[in-house]
Amino acid sequence: MKEIYYLDDLSVGQRFGSGCYVLDEKAIKRFAAEYDPQPFHLNNEAATESFFQGLAASGWHTAAVTMRLLVESEFKPAGGVIGAGLDVLQWHQPVRPGDKLSVETEIVEVRLSKSRPEQGMVKARATTHNQHNEPVQTFIANLVVKRYVP
Amino acid sequence: MKEIYYLDDLSVGQRFGSGCYVLDEKAIKRFAAEYDPQPFHLNNEAATESFFQGLAASGWHTAAVTMRLLVESEFKPAGGVIGAGLDVLQWHQPVRPGDKLSVETEIVEVRLSKSRPEQGMVKARATTHNQHNEPVQTFIANLVVKRYVP
Repeated sequence: MKEIYYLDDLSVGQRFGSGCYVLDEKAIKRFAAEYDPQPFHLNNEAATESFFQGLAASGWHTAAVTMRLLVESEFKPAGGVIGAGLDVLQWHQPVRPGDKLSVETEIVEVRLSKSRPEQGMVKARATTHNQHNEPVQTFIANLVVKRYVP
Repeated sequence: MKEIYYLDDLSVGQRFGSGCYVLDEKAIKRFAAEYDPQPFHLNNEAATESFFQGLAASGWHTAAVTMRLLVESEFKPAGGVIGAGLDVLQWHQPVRPGDKLSVETEIVEVRLSKSRPEQGMVKARATTHNQHNEPVQTFIANLVVKRYVP
């Protein structure tokens, strides 16, 4: 059982690790066929001639895998990982078949809600790395986190 | 065959529509099981007691469906829909089982690349609506678009 973090347990600078997730070629093509059906995510030959110069995962696939890693990470906000949105998202470089991803999350802002005293907002920067420790994606999420009510 | 838009064919204020996509309960739970395994996306009873007060699609599922609608829309940038990232993403309200989504895309900035004369960057705001014409998600994407080279 992992520790639950209420708003008051979180502070700027806290960091959380994650497990790993390998994106294989089959999974890259399956996600793309359903959600991002473009040649450079679906077809090895076509991908060679594209911007990506080889088969690459959809950025939305990387984002979805990042969420899976976050949800299963040590970072367990009270009420769940509930995003109101993102301040920014950057895809730094392509994710290739066989890449092994992991996520590091850092708390960058914690504030009370003005209108809802039982919750607050947390900004968390999630950086997704590949097996070479190169960042492939960064986003800053705005999360809704419960306060502790005895 | 739909028209291809090179960088020079795009200008601020252009708008593009999309088709529709229905998210049913089974698809919501299947996506969540793979990428966002939290009770409010997986279990109707648990969802009732949650922040969402009922089963809701993962925001990343809404984002992935938005990408599918974009890729199949009238907006066909030369080289494909290739995102370097997002300036912002907001999830305005939950997407519920049976919701029918569509996307409107508006070009908000077009600029040449300083370092790569054969391409440029386009900012596009994508607003995803449900069947009640309520916005459920908005993002501004930074897209890499080819220039026309005769």
